[in-house]
Amino acid sequence: MRTAPRQLHLGAFLFGVGHHVAAWRHPDVDPSAALRLQHYQQLARIAEAGLFDAIFSADTMGLPGSSADLLSRNAPPHQFEPLALLAALAGVTERIGLVGTVSTTYLPPYHLARKLASLDHLSAGRAGWNLVTSGSDHEARIFGLEQQLAHAQRYERAREYVDVVKGLWDSFEDDALLLDQQAGRYFDPAKLHRLDHQGRHYRVQGALQSQRPPQGYPVMVQAGSSEDGQELAAATAELVFTAHQSVEDARAFYRSLKDRLPAQGRSPDALKILPGVSPVVGRTQAEAQEKYDRLQALIDPAVGLGLLSSFVGGFDFSAYPLDGPVPELPPTEGWQSRQALFLNLARRENLTLRQLYQRVATARGHWTVVGTPQSIADELEHWFTTGAADGFNIMAPTLPYDLQDFVALVIPELQRRGLFRTAYQGRTLREHLGLPRPAHPAQFRASGRPQTAPAVPAPATA
Amino acid sequence: MRTAPRQLHLGAFLFGVGHHVAAWRHPDVDPSAALRLQHYQQLARIAEAGLFDAIFSADTMGLPGSSADLLSRNAPPHQFEPLALLAALAGVTERIGLVGTVSTTYLPPYHLARKLASLDHLSAGRAGWNLVTSGSDHEARIFGLEQQLAHAQRYERAREYVDVVKGLWDSFEDDALLLDQQAGRYFDPAKLHRLDHQGRHYRVQGALQSQRPPQGYPVMVQAGSSEDGQELAAATAELVFTAHQSVEDARAFYRSLKDRLPAQGRSPDALKILPGVSPVVGRTQAEAQEKYDRLQALIDPAVGLGLLSSFVGGFDFSAYPLDGPVPELPPTEGWQSRQALFLNLARRENLTLRQLYQRVATARGHWTVVGTPQSIADELEHWFTTGAADGFNIMAPTLPYDLQDFVALVIPELQRRGLFRTAYQGRTLREHLGLPRPAHPAQFRASGRPQTAPAVPAPATA
Repeated sequence: MRTAPRQLHLGAFLFGVGHHVAAWRHPDVDPSAALRLQHYQQLARIAEAGLFDAIFSADTMGLPGSSADLLSRNAPPHQFEPLALLAALAGVTERIGLVGTVSTTYLPPYHLARKLASLDHLSAGRAGWNLVTSGSDHEARIFGLEQQLAHAQRYERAREYVDVVKGLWDSFEDDALLLDQQAGRYFDPAKLHRLDHQGRHYRVQGALQSQRPPQGYPVMVQAGSSEDGQELAAATAELVFTAHQSVEDARAFYRSLKDRLPAQGRSPDALKILPGVSPVVGRTQAEAQEKYDRLQALIDPAVGLGLLSSFVGGFDFSAYPLDGPVPELPPTEGWQSRQALFLNLARRENLTLRQLYQRVATARGHWTVVGTPQSIADELEHWFTTGAADGFNIMAPTLPYDLQDFVALVIPELQRRGLFRTAYQGRTLREHLGLPRPAHPAQFRASGRPQTAPAVPAPATA
Repeated sequence: MRTAPRQLHLGAFLFGVGHHVAAWRHPDVDPSAALRLQHYQQLARIAEAGLFDAIFSADTMGLPGSSADLLSRNAPPHQFEPLALLAALAGVTERIGLVGTVSTTYLPPYHLARKLASLDHLSAGRAGWNLVTSGSDHEARIFGLEQQLAHAQRYERAREYVDVVKGLWDSFEDDALLLDQQAGRYFDPAKLHRLDHQGRHYRVQGALQSQRPPQGYPVMVQAGSSEDGQELAAATAELVFTAHQSVEDARAFYRSLKDRLPAQGRSPDALKILPGVSPVVGRTQAEAQEKYDRLQALIDPAVGLGLLSSFVGGFDFSAYPLDGPVPELPPTEGWQSRQALFLNLARRENLTLRQLYQRVATARGHWTVVGTPQSIADELEHWFTTGAADGFNIMAPTLPYDLQDFVALVIPELQRRGLFRTAYQGRTLREHLGLPRPAHPAQFRASGRPQTAPAVPAPATA
């Protein structure tokens, strides 16, 4: 069998009216669109026309704890529950994957298994689950806690949570259905497996009222890049979203994560790494720069600083001069990888506090490229071919406009270079990503591998 | 202002390939359709063409605890998470309401508030929440408990839960959005209200990242008919689904529930009562009877008896002769109203165990009518005009066929009699049902009513 040439995988990260913190203030943007299904239907159709592997809906719990005044000047305080949004988009799309964020920390695993299985069936095999553990005290308080669990504890719980969820997805074997109307047998009772999980953090007995998801398991996605996050990703993730400001950092992360896979019995190909990138595309460099400058000029300094603070554990920068250096920060139990990203960026480029928040504001710390279709394709190709990325999660500064421009201008350039598909080849998200479909653990038992029940299968190899 | 003539409200209760326990064995039925979005899209479109007030998706948690053998002979063991399903249907419908069941017992209130608010926005004001408390030990075990909470305790928790959920829906006032791009104010910070709830069962601090739902609150629905259930419904519900086998029982329930409303400061019109009815329609009575007999002949006795058992707290009937009397049953902490319904039915009609499960199997204990469009309309009209119902929840024995027949044959007859709308007048589910839109509590405070924070508003009056 000939191996197809390696091609980019692209995610379209949907986020209100755009990833730039001031997107909603742009005169072309309708700031109320973030509240309407039609807006997201349009984005999904644009992304599917652009042959993206998936659309992606991020999430946190509740409104941030910052002041009402600050929130009111920030991006739209509105975010649909990702699975509800993606289910609503399943019916108006046919091929594109649907990846939603759900935190493991505040939702019983049954509910997560159930809704992801539902989305995978409703979309005929296009669901992905972006596992996060939630990293803010304001989220903990919505669930009756004083403060969040420690970082390492959240990740330890998450690993057991994944076992439980997979066990529930395996309630039925793939070929359990008989549909024998004459004999009155809907399924083969030997192919129902009730979970009986008694772990350190979870105790779950029962079965999901769902046939096995079309993809076996929805694609397992993760975005945590801390040490704990990388270890969990190496064990469980198939797609990793990450944030880097330089190709060197991206390469180091790529190597660090891929090098962990063999110890888990996994091939480096079994996990795809997609850094986020925020593309500002112009027909000329000057046009692109003008678009970028126009958005940057709309950043409210208080909003930029507040955004920076929210990413580094809520540190209060108000006592520090905007045009002075970025102060040292205490360790956080929150989003450790993002804190490190910003501090490294500030040190490397010797940024002032103002310069740092301006960089953060364009796409919450993700890499921003400002250029022509050719120059942007050059940069993406460079990252892709030098061991920094398997593709990218595209974070359009304004939506739908910058996503439209990316699809109209950059995608054709990537296709001309043979770096991106010219038609969908597969039907499921796994097929788009070239990921194997996980076998049901009963198949391993049948083939004589060790029987551990409730088993989580070793990753299937192609 | 002239008062419009009172008309029926109709729900289309979607349930796999039909409410009859043997529906999937009927030769016309595709038993695998229960797994596909397209099937539910078709049902939603049929119901919307029939001008139903709402479609309704029920739910329980996980697979029942009965044996794999019994389950494999039962109705399809597959049920989508209701909110995911309804979100998927929001995009292919325009007017019909979308009512989904979510239990209060095993889901933190934030998650419920969030997903219902999302559905109400995604559907532009068509969401309803059917509150249940879950009534089975097998459900408890999915969440790490040995057995379910006591009936009264579940309802006590549910009442506090509703307060929390409404408090979260009220995070923003209705007119909070400024969308002032020039000044950089997305919303008026004075119109954000963070919940600070410290109750007996729940502690919730924070705000929903959602503007207030288009309907203020999604329509509050309930199906519990026990004493605890009626008390909660009188305090909080706007639509009640119920099950009765005779017009006398239905009238007694209707009076019992409506009589509780004044004590809650509510008008009897503020709550609509919809008994379930399973219609078997024929062009002649003989044709209808033949359809009915054909389905009844497909009931597997073990399945019928198992279904009966599941509704009466898991009582084991295996030691009792099928053609003997129905034994006395111990009190249940499960579904009390359904247990009472079946025992009363058996006593009144002097049914054998076999006759009882055959009645239960047609629509899980709901009223079944077998007749012509005229005779069925006669019966519905009789219930509607003699104080037994404000409308009906239509439980088609097979789907889509019996729903199609109801829409094609019975709806026109109801319209001819002036008993049902000939076009949608409103856009939201509240408007279809003639229910007022609940005001935000800040409006009561502004108008000088007692200020209790975090307040749950008194029911708005028209």
